[in-house]
Amino acid sequence: MFIENIPALENSKSPSLEVCLTPALLSLYNVENYIVVIIDIFRATSSICYGIENGAEAIIPVAQVEECVAYREKGTGYLLAAERDGSVVDGFDFGNSPFSYTAEKVSGKTVVLTTTNGTQALHLSRKAKKVVIGSFLNLTALSNWLKVQNENILLVCAGWKNNFNLEDTAFAGAVIDQLKASGQYTLDDPAIAAYDLYQLAKGDIPAYLSKTSHGERMRKLGIEKDIAFCLNVDITTAIPILDGEKLVKLV
Amino acid sequence: MFIENIPALENSKSPSLEVCLTPALLSLYNVENYIVVIIDIFRATSSICYGIENGAEAIIPVAQVEECVAYREKGTGYLLAAERDGSVVDGFDFGNSPFSYTAEKVSGKTVVLTTTNGTQALHLSRKAKKVVIGSFLNLTALSNWLKVQNENILLVCAGWKNNFNLEDTAFAGAVIDQLKASGQYTLDDPAIAAYDLYQLAKGDIPAYLSKTSHGERMRKLGIEKDIAFCLNVDITTAIPILDGEKLVKLV
Repeated sequence: MFIENIPALENSKSPSLEVCLTPALLSLYNVENYIVVIIDIFRATSSICYGIENGAEAIIPVAQVEECVAYREKGTGYLLAAERDGSVVDGFDFGNSPFSYTAEKVSGKTVVLTTTNGTQALHLSRKAKKVVIGSFLNLTALSNWLKVQNENILLVCAGWKNNFNLEDTAFAGAVIDQLKASGQYTLDDPAIAAYDLYQLAKGDIPAYLSKTSHGERMRKLGIEKDIAFCLNVDITTAIPILDGEKLVKLV
Repeated sequence: MFIENIPALENSKSPSLEVCLTPALLSLYNVENYIVVIIDIFRATSSICYGIENGAEAIIPVAQVEECVAYREKGTGYLLAAERDGSVVDGFDFGNSPFSYTAEKVSGKTVVLTTTNGTQALHLSRKAKKVVIGSFLNLTALSNWLKVQNENILLVCAGWKNNFNLEDTAFAGAVIDQLKASGQYTLDDPAIAAYDLYQLAKGDIPAYLSKTSHGERMRKLGIEKDIAFCLNVDITTAIPILDGEKLVKLV
């Protein structure tokens, strides 16, 4: 572009509804002006939503396996979740499959889990007004809560190795699809794109996402069942929210 | 994502066709493995394609007005183009409207123009196998040339202030639309998204792009005519290519 110094969404009085397509672009936003929704559909934020729904007292996301191990020394109250190359890391309680986050396993417990992109997105978003977790599992509950906040909303896609991915963007579009009807928001270009992509996906989300390079990687790792589970819409109502280092239940 | 260390598009033997959605993400790609296409639809790459088509000997893109001025001291053979806030900068030959790049004005001349995002994308792409310029004006000529290169292709969107914009992404999708039919390429997720968005846009590109926040900014600047011109498809056949500091005619 030739033109400089024109702020995005200038002069708009309605709250803005924007999408940050990867954590690598998060520095372009003043996160303190937004409620941030972290999105990492395969599989971090889906597992988190499922775990909080199933009564986990808290979930603590960390970047490295080593940080996870450090919690072992803090006491016996922690369940440690870590996975590398599709297998549970030796000595950990479970891996990163959402099926590990059943009530039987996590109720009343604090789970420490390693994620990569999801953790980075969370860390970079700490100064936001609020940081909540989104997945297809809690789509409508999350959207209904967002609707009544009357705040700027930034949907942050964790992406894939700091780049754009289709599944996180499609979910951002699903949230926009629910919020847009109220007509109160100003959308930025990434939000318009996410919304449009979701219109293509919504009739059959698994089919739409199966064409991605990502889908192929998942199949090779043998976690098709996890992927299918993460695309279940509205099977939970809990909204995990960041409280210090921990994700806890907001509603 | 939980999973690490799986290279994108692994094991693919066909050339890849990828989209870098903004210059801020260019560091995620090894540009030396690609032919890079620079895309800055409103208005840099459209003006460049039109100028080269109309016989400009070369076009030199620079980031700052001051760099542009330095060429004044090198001799009288340069036309200087710079615009700020929609007006020609004092003492310059013309602004950044594509209508300034007619044969009458630029034939046989070297034009030095200031751009912001476009220049950044060019600068970051210098190590690519080749760097060429794309716009709706030369869409089919560019696509036909790309088809016979048998190389990995990276479509680099200049975007808006380092963020995603719809018009550059839609054009990337238009190129993919022409190349995809040959079936020889592996697409990454941003390429799939760009292709899908273009399917929504192709019936009426101006109408599709008019809904962006960008379109509104353009209208406020009174450059609707420029914008409309930049959405003309296939009115030129020249492909500008980077040769050192200069863009010259490849075909």
